[in-house]
Amino acid sequence: MSTSRLEFKDSTHLDNALPASTRIYVSGKLHPSVRVPLREITISGNNAPIRVYDTRGPWGDPKFLCDPRQGLPAIRTPWISDRGDTVAIEGRAVRPEDNGYLTFQHANLAAQGETRTRLESFPGLKRQPRRSATGRSVSQMYYAKQGIITPEMEYIAIRENLGREQAFKPESKRASLLFQHRGESFGSAIPDFITPEFVRDEIARGRAIIPANINHPELEPMIIGRNFLVKINANIGNSAVSSSIEEEVEKMRWSITWGGDTVMDLSTGRNIHETREWILRNSPVPIGTVPIYQALEKCGGKPEELTWELYRDTLIEQAEQGVDYFTIHAGVLLRYIPWTAKRRTGIVSRGGSILAKWCLAHHQENFLYTHFEEICEIMKAYDVSFSLGDGLRPGSIADANDDAQFGELETLGELTQVAWKHDVQVMIEGPGHVPMHLIKENMDLQLKLTKEAPFYTLGPLTTDIAPGYDHITSAIGAAMIGWYGTAMLCYVTPKEHLGLPNAKDVKDGVIAYKIAAHAADLAKGHPGAQERDNALSQARFEFRWQDQFNLSLDPTTAKDFHDETLPQDGAKVAHFCSMCGPQFCSMKITQDVRDYAESLGLDEESAMKKGMEEKSDEFKKAGAEIYVKQ
Amino acid sequence: MSTSRLEFKDSTHLDNALPASTRIYVSGKLHPSVRVPLREITISGNNAPIRVYDTRGPWGDPKFLCDPRQGLPAIRTPWISDRGDTVAIEGRAVRPEDNGYLTFQHANLAAQGETRTRLESFPGLKRQPRRSATGRSVSQMYYAKQGIITPEMEYIAIRENLGREQAFKPESKRASLLFQHRGESFGSAIPDFITPEFVRDEIARGRAIIPANINHPELEPMIIGRNFLVKINANIGNSAVSSSIEEEVEKMRWSITWGGDTVMDLSTGRNIHETREWILRNSPVPIGTVPIYQALEKCGGKPEELTWELYRDTLIEQAEQGVDYFTIHAGVLLRYIPWTAKRRTGIVSRGGSILAKWCLAHHQENFLYTHFEEICEIMKAYDVSFSLGDGLRPGSIADANDDAQFGELETLGELTQVAWKHDVQVMIEGPGHVPMHLIKENMDLQLKLTKEAPFYTLGPLTTDIAPGYDHITSAIGAAMIGWYGTAMLCYVTPKEHLGLPNAKDVKDGVIAYKIAAHAADLAKGHPGAQERDNALSQARFEFRWQDQFNLSLDPTTAKDFHDETLPQDGAKVAHFCSMCGPQFCSMKITQDVRDYAESLGLDEESAMKKGMEEKSDEFKKAGAEIYVKQ
Repeated sequence: MSTSRLEFKDSTHLDNALPASTRIYVSGKLHPSVRVPLREITISGNNAPIRVYDTRGPWGDPKFLCDPRQGLPAIRTPWISDRGDTVAIEGRAVRPEDNGYLTFQHANLAAQGETRTRLESFPGLKRQPRRSATGRSVSQMYYAKQGIITPEMEYIAIRENLGREQAFKPESKRASLLFQHRGESFGSAIPDFITPEFVRDEIARGRAIIPANINHPELEPMIIGRNFLVKINANIGNSAVSSSIEEEVEKMRWSITWGGDTVMDLSTGRNIHETREWILRNSPVPIGTVPIYQALEKCGGKPEELTWELYRDTLIEQAEQGVDYFTIHAGVLLRYIPWTAKRRTGIVSRGGSILAKWCLAHHQENFLYTHFEEICEIMKAYDVSFSLGDGLRPGSIADANDDAQFGELETLGELTQVAWKHDVQVMIEGPGHVPMHLIKENMDLQLKLTKEAPFYTLGPLTTDIAPGYDHITSAIGAAMIGWYGTAMLCYVTPKEHLGLPNAKDVKDGVIAYKIAAHAADLAKGHPGAQERDNALSQARFEFRWQDQFNLSLDPTTAKDFHDETLPQDGAKVAHFCSMCGPQFCSMKITQDVRDYAESLGLDEESAMKKGMEEKSDEFKKAGAEIYVKQ
Repeated sequence: MSTSRLEFKDSTHLDNALPASTRIYVSGKLHPSVRVPLREITISGNNAPIRVYDTRGPWGDPKFLCDPRQGLPAIRTPWISDRGDTVAIEGRAVRPEDNGYLTFQHANLAAQGETRTRLESFPGLKRQPRRSATGRSVSQMYYAKQGIITPEMEYIAIRENLGREQAFKPESKRASLLFQHRGESFGSAIPDFITPEFVRDEIARGRAIIPANINHPELEPMIIGRNFLVKINANIGNSAVSSSIEEEVEKMRWSITWGGDTVMDLSTGRNIHETREWILRNSPVPIGTVPIYQALEKCGGKPEELTWELYRDTLIEQAEQGVDYFTIHAGVLLRYIPWTAKRRTGIVSRGGSILAKWCLAHHQENFLYTHFEEICEIMKAYDVSFSLGDGLRPGSIADANDDAQFGELETLGELTQVAWKHDVQVMIEGPGHVPMHLIKENMDLQLKLTKEAPFYTLGPLTTDIAPGYDHITSAIGAAMIGWYGTAMLCYVTPKEHLGLPNAKDVKDGVIAYKIAAHAADLAKGHPGAQERDNALSQARFEFRWQDQFNLSLDPTTAKDFHDETLPQDGAKVAHFCSMCGPQFCSMKITQDVRDYAESLGLDEESAMKKGMEEKSDEFKKAGAEIYVKQ
């Protein structure tokens, strides 16, 4: 095959998705090579710009011309080599079966049965894979436990603060936008400012993770933990149904344009290995996978033919490529499987059902559980984080919070301690389908059983009756569980249960989850979280329509919706809403009231009172007849 | 004008929106003339049909040919006349100014300055308006206090039960679908079965209302209260921007097709009176309005020119037409207005800002407050319910739960007691924009200050940063406040803050709110609420795709989404999901596991265990080589 022949579509729509934005960089102090990208939204008039988190990586920098064939710059390479604890290796050869079912384009390769090096599968890659030097641990958790603040940790501290340090100074123009309600964080320990030391300490105690494989140096470090901003994950990936490498790379870019913090490549079809290579080389966000999907492809889709050796080899294959976290369903224990027989919807996790079938076929304990320490050895050699999978998550409201689910959670808690012993970072996957009143029990148990390892939940969906709208049924549950303490929310698209998401579905899913995550940050009282709400509402109140659009999660949609009713450019500076027309706008009336009060030069409340009296006099003097009888 | 020349579009899309459905009727026992419509969704195979609440009225009965020019049958007329406490009246003449700005079609009428009777404005109307006979109270609350069970009350009892009485019998085919989690209802008092007596008692103590104007006999009675199913309202209405009578009638039908329980006509533009007449005559659900919008139109859009006389006349105009509830912003008191000056977004309620401006102009107490008892007299003569408006609701996260908002709520509590003294039914409107952690305080205060009058909230929106997606930002808050005890949720469409909703927006808003309301019912543990979830999940698990679509809130969308990936008809009975393909479906694997276990004829758990052993033996005998090393 010739991957250099891949054709990428014009991406102007992505470049123009977020108007009135400037890419800025904030440099590290401990590590001057740290340059954290933020997006600054320009506000009209004398208003200070608003800084927001930016997940787009170099793709979001107009000065940087990205070529997907070359991949992104490897910003972490010097940090990794400076640590002097890794070695370049030959790496595992790429075999035809790594790519699952092959397209016609790639069939010749399979027919020849030839293997090749990883470098050959991505033309822009000029480096060898690395792993830890013998006897060395290279995980961020290991460094943290040693008291080391890595560049990754400082990067995250700056990124999570969004430049709030300046903003909180009284002379800052942004200060007036920083009012926010005191939150309720249910025992979280969110500091006013995130320091590099705080990041380190959270990593050391396992309460947060930095998914950052040493073979993914293109990655811009981010953190997942209950004391940080709530993150979201977007799933992409092809299936037996055809989907090209180009499409998957574009889906990844699409996800991060709208704010996806991590991306999972759940491919199960053709070109699995190559697709992942192209996604990784072009992704500034952590990439997660479920390695058993590929392992299953390698044995013809028959779960009973899975072996530890095959699985282990797949872990190494993916770790050498640079996958940042693996979903591993090591908690699907033999003894829990019978408990699922009584369920309304049995086992709905793909990974869970594969392992259940394997256990059934062999009458043996789950091989991921029995080989867990060996898996830890692999994870720690590349700093791949665990995402301990909830293979027994409920797939319907009826099955929520049952014995099988919580039995598995207990096992995940036990495995977390094993992983931590190996300095391997861990997050825990959570449900699923859960009615609102049973959500908090999930969070509380998770915190207790896993000693506060970050929770990473799918939804949860709060009802089963709305296929086609499960981004909404689940955004409700996601916002709530995010508030209660979940660190990352796995998005659900409108196609959930029905089909594969297209670009529109991916965007709808990401936006719904950005809403859920941000609503959670507000409710937790995350410092500074309300700034953007305040700025947008201020713009709304002052009829600065363009500012309102630019500050929103999806400026183009907001503008298009506005233009449907009032398409004239003038309407965007007009002092009325399209809902009410010029004479009827409540915002305008309120502003009239306030302007009048302010013109009297008194403090606001007494000005209002005085304003009313005077206006009443004025009104009477003008000969007004209409007056209320007492 | 000739309203008989109105042209209504073909409504096949509405008639086909809910496939595999049968309209059934359940008759009353106390009142044999009561016939409650339900929708029965047919399920394939040997499965019992599922009964669901149906808001479509006669429009949902294929045997009934509705003609919007004739209006719906007046089913309540005999009930109202049997009570013998009302009289037919001449009624207020329709004046040109009642219709606000007129379209060219209607301009001739205005030019002539002629008035006419209400009968002339709707050709199908053959009756006079009615009001209470002198000294009589005709409200459902009055009857309830007298111990009377009206046909309306029995109707509601049957409707809320959805035929659960039969379903709960052990021999019922539906019994297996009735499992549900024990809910958390925060002190609600939801009985297992809704009896007519329970409905009466809830109405008598003001904990629920039946909005049912005696001049809206086409209405199918429904109830709003925390011990009943959570309801949703959809707003329609034209504005200064043109929108025809036909379009508004179609929006009403569109809303009730997807499940809107009540509809508010918020028209502020042309043909206000006529539009409302046509909506009412064709609506089987309660219609609410904000009378001050029309009153303001009548005085040229200038709030300071509003008078009590003008407003009073508008109340009577609308009460005679049959409006079932009025939003009345009687709690916007003079002393609260200065408190809004410090706000981020001032007063965002249109009604609230109109009254604030009136107060400012006159330096007088809100005339709706000073004339409140007179308003009660009008309400009770037609049984119009109060929806006490929250004119000072917060319009941004920053302004949530402030003094102005809660001050007004306290006044609404005081007014509730006044209304109850007059036997007038009351619900209380609520916010607005509220971060998640401040939602419950709203609910708790509302219950306390109003002595459990039903709460009717707009959203609340849980963040300000997603214009274009506020159906989602608010569905999160709506689901939560519904769970906490809100009786009716006012929908928000994706166009909120940006423009007027079109048909797609109305549908998106209604579906998002049906999700929120149902998620709330599940969390409260409303008896039987989980049946539809169970049935749908069962269908999903058994790969009955058509059943899954038919049981969903929006069957067509679910089917279309499925068909995008796997369009063949065969796929809809295929035992795999389009996400995974034939070999990879977790549901299929689970079912294989379960089928095998069941085939052994043992109880499920031990069958599973035995199954695993046997399958393992079988596997080994077949010469399987791949086996896990210990």
